[in-house]
Amino acid sequence: MKPTHIEHLGIAVKSLDEVIPYYEQLLGSKCYSIEEVADQKVRTAFFKIGQTKIELLEPTSPESTIAKWLEKNPHGGVHHVAFCVEGLQVVLDEAAAAGLQLIDKQPRKGAEGLNIAFLHPKSTHGVLTELCENPNK
Amino acid sequence: MKPTHIEHLGIAVKSLDEVIPYYEQLLGSKCYSIEEVADQKVRTAFFKIGQTKIELLEPTSPESTIAKWLEKNPHGGVHHVAFCVEGLQVVLDEAAAAGLQLIDKQPRKGAEGLNIAFLHPKSTHGVLTELCENPNK
Repeated sequence: MKPTHIEHLGIAVKSLDEVIPYYEQLLGSKCYSIEEVADQKVRTAFFKIGQTKIELLEPTSPESTIAKWLEKNPHGGVHHVAFCVEGLQVVLDEAAAAGLQLIDKQPRKGAEGLNIAFLHPKSTHGVLTELCENPNK
Repeated sequence: MKPTHIEHLGIAVKSLDEVIPYYEQLLGSKCYSIEEVADQKVRTAFFKIGQTKIELLEPTSPESTIAKWLEKNPHGGVHHVAFCVEGLQVVLDEAAAAGLQLIDKQPRKGAEGLNIAFLHPKSTHGVLTELCENPNK
């Protein structure tokens, strides 16, 4: 595996409206996109900082995995780290062959049109880890 | 505030020896430095991924803040996010004037010779946030 950079940090928050002004101040730039990802039951807000995006994640349902995560981490925090790779399916096959456990054996669609897949936390020493690929590159 | 990029992610682990091989596999690159930071009671291991470093943090004493964090998060995880800024003292003064709470009102020395300062988690919506500056730039 040879990712090129950290594509984004996924940060769980209870309320986008509350937290967006903080990140606009911290990063000195405006939130450039708000998008609902219906099948993950979240609303997302995006910022750019160097090569990396900050993706704020607000649950839209108590059934959302983000809502459940916030029950255990009520102040919010870093929910996952996403690395940008090329050739995602090949990378997943190689990761499985090397003994890593995968949540997604095949890529699926995530926010911003990326193809994404998650590694199982049992393999990643506590950091929920996403791999993603821009299909338009 | 206008940071240029994410300087590093600080990831708490119980054992560098156990976790370094995983990150070498994930990132496709070798750990390039292991450094003990005595006043923070940690041993650190560094990797590079694009503009950003991964800093693994292993406690060297039960009194370490990392040891205490691992008691609450026994699988490990993302402990802090560090943003690279220029003119750190000015940035800190501006942050305080804008109402953010600071842990460090003045920069102090961190790993790799950087000048660093932490924002208080009360101000940062659950993400322990570090600002750092390379004094040799």
